[in-house]
Amino acid sequence: MGQLVVGSREDHPCVSASEHGREVELPALWLRQHSPEETQRDGMTGQRLFDPHLLPTDLHLVRADLADGRLSVTFSDGHESVYESAMLLANLELSEGLPQPISWRADSGQPNVHRWTDLHDPAAELAAIGDFLTYGAIVFSDVPCVAGTILDVAARFGFVRDTNFGPVFDVRSIPNSTDLAYRAVPLSPHTDNPYRTPVPGIQMLHCLINETTGGLSTLVDGLAAVEQLRAEDPDAVELLATVPVRFRYRDATTDIVTVRTVVDRDHQGTVTGLNYSPRLDELPLMSDADTRRYQAARQRLAHLLASSEFQVRFLLEAGQLMMFDNNRVLHGRTSFDPNEGLRHLQGCYIDQDGPRTRYRVLSR
Amino acid sequence: MGQLVVGSREDHPCVSASEHGREVELPALWLRQHSPEETQRDGMTGQRLFDPHLLPTDLHLVRADLADGRLSVTFSDGHESVYESAMLLANLELSEGLPQPISWRADSGQPNVHRWTDLHDPAAELAAIGDFLTYGAIVFSDVPCVAGTILDVAARFGFVRDTNFGPVFDVRSIPNSTDLAYRAVPLSPHTDNPYRTPVPGIQMLHCLINETTGGLSTLVDGLAAVEQLRAEDPDAVELLATVPVRFRYRDATTDIVTVRTVVDRDHQGTVTGLNYSPRLDELPLMSDADTRRYQAARQRLAHLLASSEFQVRFLLEAGQLMMFDNNRVLHGRTSFDPNEGLRHLQGCYIDQDGPRTRYRVLSR
Repeated sequence: MGQLVVGSREDHPCVSASEHGREVELPALWLRQHSPEETQRDGMTGQRLFDPHLLPTDLHLVRADLADGRLSVTFSDGHESVYESAMLLANLELSEGLPQPISWRADSGQPNVHRWTDLHDPAAELAAIGDFLTYGAIVFSDVPCVAGTILDVAARFGFVRDTNFGPVFDVRSIPNSTDLAYRAVPLSPHTDNPYRTPVPGIQMLHCLINETTGGLSTLVDGLAAVEQLRAEDPDAVELLATVPVRFRYRDATTDIVTVRTVVDRDHQGTVTGLNYSPRLDELPLMSDADTRRYQAARQRLAHLLASSEFQVRFLLEAGQLMMFDNNRVLHGRTSFDPNEGLRHLQGCYIDQDGPRTRYRVLSR
Repeated sequence: MGQLVVGSREDHPCVSASEHGREVELPALWLRQHSPEETQRDGMTGQRLFDPHLLPTDLHLVRADLADGRLSVTFSDGHESVYESAMLLANLELSEGLPQPISWRADSGQPNVHRWTDLHDPAAELAAIGDFLTYGAIVFSDVPCVAGTILDVAARFGFVRDTNFGPVFDVRSIPNSTDLAYRAVPLSPHTDNPYRTPVPGIQMLHCLINETTGGLSTLVDGLAAVEQLRAEDPDAVELLATVPVRFRYRDATTDIVTVRTVVDRDHQGTVTGLNYSPRLDELPLMSDADTRRYQAARQRLAHLLASSEFQVRFLLEAGQLMMFDNNRVLHGRTSFDPNEGLRHLQGCYIDQDGPRTRYRVLSR
């Protein structure tokens, strides 16, 4: 964790954090934003009571003392502040306070199963959410097989994201039905609604009835597939992360279009997930050579997503509910014979925020 | 709009779009994805019935004929397709089919006012949404002063985005109240909830009662402010678009954190908006020099946002509702004297998708 060190810099005192012999200066403006004094920060919410952009750009320290694990400083604007050293050291990284994602392949046997009926226990809830944030997918067992129960599960973790498909959507087979809506065709791995702005963050699918022996649920960790693609061909990942494609959904009352890349990266260039629905994507007009390069990249990605090395297959049973990060984990299902019996799932979306917030509150 | 031209390339026919003497080749894979044949594309939804990533990377044309505004081609995979030339030419750009944003300053007198009671007329609704998409903000007049009516307005344009503040939140003064929740302090320009993932896309604020003479609503176009900052100091914009800051909201049951940049850019580097709430932002640990540079950049941005050159001020009257892009347009209010009377606004959020979808459907 390191320790604080007081030194000097251009005739002013200066504070550094030192770890393994390496020192990192804590700029005066950075220290000032962290002032915990009650005139500067609301005790309950931790919200600052001043606008830090109003501080002078040349702010510096005029005094700094370390004693008993506390740092006392006076700033050139006259403000005096006392910090717990541990608090400052804990803030050296701009963390979101969440577990690091761990990518997985089919042989790791994801997703982990948690009993829904155990979630009244905060430790059990924290463990379940921790698994979700780490692996991007979990399954709850013992969820009552009653239509609409998915809304109770959603309410524990966040707020339902309503769409033109309704707050809850039904996925079902009806034996001997000829209606196309109840087709038993396989669905290759995809993320839902890449055409929306924003894309639905988390999807839940609750199995109410499954009397078929097929219709296995499939999940693929998009992070693992992109890691593999990068190992084989870094330029392919670069293309997928920079060339925008158009996704579109339309029907009689709806026409949703978004232009975005297949691979999502954050401000640091770290891959965070995928937008992937190969019936809805439309390439931009590029040169013939660039188009072929892009085609090769997405062809290889599709191959990885469909391969048994990356794709987990399991029977989601009645009373089970799977919850997965729709920006990271692709889902699908194998074909089934609807004449074997009924298959009825209910689905809904919630935002990414919900489980993250619960995780932090439960970790307090 | 240009025209199609058939030529040849490496012994294969090739099709180009020609305009003002400039020719752009239409790659075989690009043409193939646009095949309108009924075996390839569902007539109702326009969704493709095949996975284009399965096409061979070396796909090429074996025949191409132009006649009567139609292009007939045969591909090396045997597929034959007939296109309307106009359809192909209209697809040369990967457009989202929306009006281009036009940035504005205070002297342009935004936002435009539309009568809510006129919106049963599709042309009036299209005009209102067009203004919203172009300028990022509109005001509706003649909205009934009944609590909860905001949900009717929201339902026309999209789906309410529920948060820990509820589906609808109340902003009000109560004369002679001492409760801090009803404070009459000014609010400097900000975007709401930059700590959420995703940030609420669109905000609505409906004025039910305003008996005060102060409490003016303020709006600033973030695009215009960033344009000005870029003209003065391009490096400042670069810093604000690349250095992540942490935004956080917490109370007894909530703890929401997101690390993101203040300036948002899309995949092409075009500025799309801001995340700006100067009481909630926390700088990362950088070198002293970088921290001072960042401080200067955000100080100048804050100055622009607060200046009368960029900030529109107007009295939102009872029966008026303002709708603005929370990723682009910053809002605030001037101080007021709660002893003058009641001031009661209701607010809610919807996603960016809603008005975009309505615009496309109404434009059909």
